[in-house]
Amino acid sequence: MPFDLSTHVRSGLRPPAAAPFKGFPPYYFIGGNNAGEALPMPELIAAATRALEKEGRNLATYNLKTGAQGYRPLREWLVERLKSWTQIECSVDNIIVTSGSTQALELVQKVLLDPGDVVVVEGGTYGSAMTRLHDIEADYVGVAMDDDGIIPAELEKVLAELKAVGKRCKYIYTIPTVQNPTGTIMSMERRHALLDIAQRHDLMIFEDDCYADLTWSGTRPPAIKTLDTEGRVIYCGSFSKSIAPALRVGYLVADWPFIAQALTAKTDAGSGALEQITLAEFLPAHFDSHVAKLTALFKQKCDAIQDALHESFGTSAEFRPPEGGIFIWVTLPDTVDTSKLAQAAAAAGISINPGRDWVADPETGKHSFRLCFGQPSFEQIKDGVAKLAEVCHEEFGVPLTSGNVQRS
Amino acid sequence: MPFDLSTHVRSGLRPPAAAPFKGFPPYYFIGGNNAGEALPMPELIAAATRALEKEGRNLATYNLKTGAQGYRPLREWLVERLKSWTQIECSVDNIIVTSGSTQALELVQKVLLDPGDVVVVEGGTYGSAMTRLHDIEADYVGVAMDDDGIIPAELEKVLAELKAVGKRCKYIYTIPTVQNPTGTIMSMERRHALLDIAQRHDLMIFEDDCYADLTWSGTRPPAIKTLDTEGRVIYCGSFSKSIAPALRVGYLVADWPFIAQALTAKTDAGSGALEQITLAEFLPAHFDSHVAKLTALFKQKCDAIQDALHESFGTSAEFRPPEGGIFIWVTLPDTVDTSKLAQAAAAAGISINPGRDWVADPETGKHSFRLCFGQPSFEQIKDGVAKLAEVCHEEFGVPLTSGNVQRS
Repeated sequence: MPFDLSTHVRSGLRPPAAAPFKGFPPYYFIGGNNAGEALPMPELIAAATRALEKEGRNLATYNLKTGAQGYRPLREWLVERLKSWTQIECSVDNIIVTSGSTQALELVQKVLLDPGDVVVVEGGTYGSAMTRLHDIEADYVGVAMDDDGIIPAELEKVLAELKAVGKRCKYIYTIPTVQNPTGTIMSMERRHALLDIAQRHDLMIFEDDCYADLTWSGTRPPAIKTLDTEGRVIYCGSFSKSIAPALRVGYLVADWPFIAQALTAKTDAGSGALEQITLAEFLPAHFDSHVAKLTALFKQKCDAIQDALHESFGTSAEFRPPEGGIFIWVTLPDTVDTSKLAQAAAAAGISINPGRDWVADPETGKHSFRLCFGQPSFEQIKDGVAKLAEVCHEEFGVPLTSGNVQRS
Repeated sequence: MPFDLSTHVRSGLRPPAAAPFKGFPPYYFIGGNNAGEALPMPELIAAATRALEKEGRNLATYNLKTGAQGYRPLREWLVERLKSWTQIECSVDNIIVTSGSTQALELVQKVLLDPGDVVVVEGGTYGSAMTRLHDIEADYVGVAMDDDGIIPAELEKVLAELKAVGKRCKYIYTIPTVQNPTGTIMSMERRHALLDIAQRHDLMIFEDDCYADLTWSGTRPPAIKTLDTEGRVIYCGSFSKSIAPALRVGYLVADWPFIAQALTAKTDAGSGALEQITLAEFLPAHFDSHVAKLTALFKQKCDAIQDALHESFGTSAEFRPPEGGIFIWVTLPDTVDTSKLAQAAAAAGISINPGRDWVADPETGKHSFRLCFGQPSFEQIKDGVAKLAEVCHEEFGVPLTSGNVQRS
């Protein structure tokens, strides 16, 4: 009989890709890309060379002869960095180097979640985290936030509701430091409150610290993980935002019992070794100065995109100035459906994340959208936001004013 | 309440890792590692440098601006290599670069298998492929093989049995060229027969060609994929065995409908880019000559391990000389339980794969074991096999003769 793939695939798959990659649109404000112009190429090339001179022949061995937790010198550097930046005290045995924080996310889900389990997330949260929960038939529910982060009373309410309907919540997923998508930093008081609630309800906390290297102030509160004396908090970080996302290097930090389980769940025969050894050579001498320069550049781009929003959208665009990172969360008037706006913008060569993809309850994101500003040039930021305002005006009659231009 | 991880983990997890990595035993004959001494380091360093000079700033973009199917110049090289070595004709759109063939395996399973589905495998097969099927609650059943590969009549019998009990077989998993663990090469006649059966039963075939670069003869039959005009065959390969396994680079080749589904299932935000760009620079000038040298070295090591087996086990060890690759499958007398042997050997610093982990029906592997010879030195091969014979004699009274030594 003639072959038909559709009769052979698994049930419930997401739709297939429509077509092979055709390149990016001119104004690309999605995807968490980094600033290529900021990469210190001579230092990276020198690091790769030294790394290969030192460890090259060990590439012939899975995991470079330092085990499935990842290249040991990289973990040693991480132990020091975690201590100085997040105040987490741990050893190399508490770290698994992962293929980006994406894999860290996946490992946490694989180890903890049965189908039907619920994860409590922040009202606005990382879109792919929700997609993945959906993929493994786990559920999620959002908790309202304010500028200090997740609201404890709201969290208690959500947990009580889950309990009332007999649903099991396994963990709270939070991005406390440079929250995605809001760019806020959770207060210390809230960090304590969150852990306190987790303890009282016997929940775990998964603290995603992916963007936390990039605060405008150059400071940050201690990680929630530092408050944890029981092994209840799992932490992850990444070099995607601080260096480059196509280098797939992230890390998971947890007490040994969780690490031991995650190791058997990590069935990839190791994360990329060339990237790990290159970073291990690069980081000790260059990480701090690179991150300082990169953050300064992102701050300028963040200012530029706020200026562009003021200029092109006037008072129609509401947003809270991010405290770091590479994205801004913008809310438009109730007349604007940002899912429709994203479609119209795509047709005009502008990519944005419609709000509904970045919130737990799609209704709450209907008038908002996320713009990533790490990669676009200053010119693309200015022109792209101006064009987005044009598209928005055509579709929804908003904004009425762009700069000096009064629209009808 | 005090925190207890065991009350939070998913049901049915495999046991956690016992302890952090402590290094390898002196005689390590498992794990598919490669020969570090054969790596052309100056050429790899030069390739990494050129790659970073050319593409370094694109590391700031997920997937290097060439899409989720992987670095385009690497796919372009693969198109030519596949044509000349396997006779597969395809385009860059038919390839997904993966994080080792491990990820290719995982993608095939994720796209095709529902829990309870069955995969037909060769009687002896890649242990991790079975572990993974178990992890996703799919089932597998083995088909008897001879030196030419899977036996068509036996395959028909197995398929009829599955049908009789109402089980759905989605695909046949085969390693036709340098089979794991037997080291045989499937005949052309059998390749045709296998595809013919797949067509008649409307099954897919997953052809794992991981070891196929490494044939002693420097030739090979065309891939089964070349016989497929319908998109029924999915193919994968890897650079783990031809270059280095800690570089996590493999590839999946299939018709677009499958590629399109696999792309949405590939949720890792890309495979390691530094490894892909370095290989893309290295391969065109050096792959053929490197593989020729590497294969010659592996042939010498393969001869050495056969000599060692003759010397230390005499007629007690039966094996078929491999036609390529990095492992040999050895069968001992019925009095030897190789699972117990592997335990005793581990205590003596020798790692081997007990046969039951490398066959679909554990009973059929009870007296066999697999030795990987790609990484150990000639001295380790000679001494390790001699020590293994000692352990085996102590445990089972076999072999009675080792070289000139008569044991009692």
